[in-house]
Amino acid sequence: MADSDELMVFGVWTSHYSRRVELALKLKGIQYQYFEEDLSNKSPLLLKYNPIHKKIPVLVHNGKPVAESLVILEYIDETWKNNPLLPQDPYARAMSRFWAKFIDETIVALALKLRAGTEEEQKQTIEELRKHLKVLENQLEGKEFFGGDRIGYLDVMATVIAFWLVVAQEAMGGLEVMTEERFPILYKWIGRITKIDVVNEWRPPKEKLIEYLKARFASPKSV
Amino acid sequence: MADSDELMVFGVWTSHYSRRVELALKLKGIQYQYFEEDLSNKSPLLLKYNPIHKKIPVLVHNGKPVAESLVILEYIDETWKNNPLLPQDPYARAMSRFWAKFIDETIVALALKLRAGTEEEQKQTIEELRKHLKVLENQLEGKEFFGGDRIGYLDVMATVIAFWLVVAQEAMGGLEVMTEERFPILYKWIGRITKIDVVNEWRPPKEKLIEYLKARFASPKSV
Repeated sequence: MADSDELMVFGVWTSHYSRRVELALKLKGIQYQYFEEDLSNKSPLLLKYNPIHKKIPVLVHNGKPVAESLVILEYIDETWKNNPLLPQDPYARAMSRFWAKFIDETIVALALKLRAGTEEEQKQTIEELRKHLKVLENQLEGKEFFGGDRIGYLDVMATVIAFWLVVAQEAMGGLEVMTEERFPILYKWIGRITKIDVVNEWRPPKEKLIEYLKARFASPKSV
Repeated sequence: MADSDELMVFGVWTSHYSRRVELALKLKGIQYQYFEEDLSNKSPLLLKYNPIHKKIPVLVHNGKPVAESLVILEYIDETWKNNPLLPQDPYARAMSRFWAKFIDETIVALALKLRAGTEEEQKQTIEELRKHLKVLENQLEGKEFFGGDRIGYLDVMATVIAFWLVVAQEAMGGLEVMTEERFPILYKWIGRITKIDVVNEWRPPKEKLIEYLKARFASPKSV
């Protein structure tokens, strides 16, 4: 990164969507200025840089904004080539992108439904979520990381399971969607990425996140 | 493409999600075998190649399947480098990807709501859709194509407006979401891409699509 480069990230500390952007930058050793947003009172800068969606995350590189977390991750990987996040082979890249979408559109989408509906519906959501987590876990079989022998794009995406879903189920009073017994390969991977200094320093403090989630779940309107 | 390459596309003739994959291949001059799917009775091959989502489109390259249309487009562009679809500059690539998501998640999502709800709600949907189409149209200002001076990735994505939305509003009895007066730049672009032989031969026959949409809209359950 050129010394003159100016890099800003607009995010929310509890959001994986902005945290994933920060992790990508940290894995590449890129310095940036972080702006914590209050979503109930968005900053003029956020509205200026993401006028279309008015959402976090936004990355601003030398004054030029990029929105949408998956778009930002690709931009980071294409702009700073060291420590590549995506694999080089086109088919392996396609598979990483496919499973990244799967994490956001299937696993995260189901996780957000965990507190909605009746007890019976919750049970169904848990079953469905477990089924899809198992499908994802199978992608790790025989590998150290989703990215192969080192942490990569799909690992960055899957940290939402390691450090959000696992914490959320605790905040929900021990829902046990995931246990080490049910998902031994995923839990071994969680242990492995937690040992990486950059990851460990980056992840949201567990107790603070539990506290935040408990307060949020206490409000009947939130899901 | 090596002579020994085997390429298959699974799609539905009325679906832009599979047609966009076909257009990308055609723009690169790549031969493929096309399999029309009956979504009410999916083929064993489709279920084999997309066991996770069981959806079209699927591209199968030498036996290896890729699903999800945006993932497929990137795969095609990275595998066959001639006639690049995405621009080369990382920031321009990010912008193409941002607007591609905007087309799918904002414009297409609103278009699919056009027939839902009360008359008042429909009016609101039309207003919202026009507002977002105008935002997209502004991206074309001063350019021949979304891709600049030649057809590219975002043009492929935006053909859903040129050859689906424009046709759908006719099939809905002249809804006039878009008119040449309201969207002169978009209509000029439509005229421009229609003159490209590959595009013109690829697009679904207008009368046949209108007939299909009218039959579909006649069923009260569809949107």
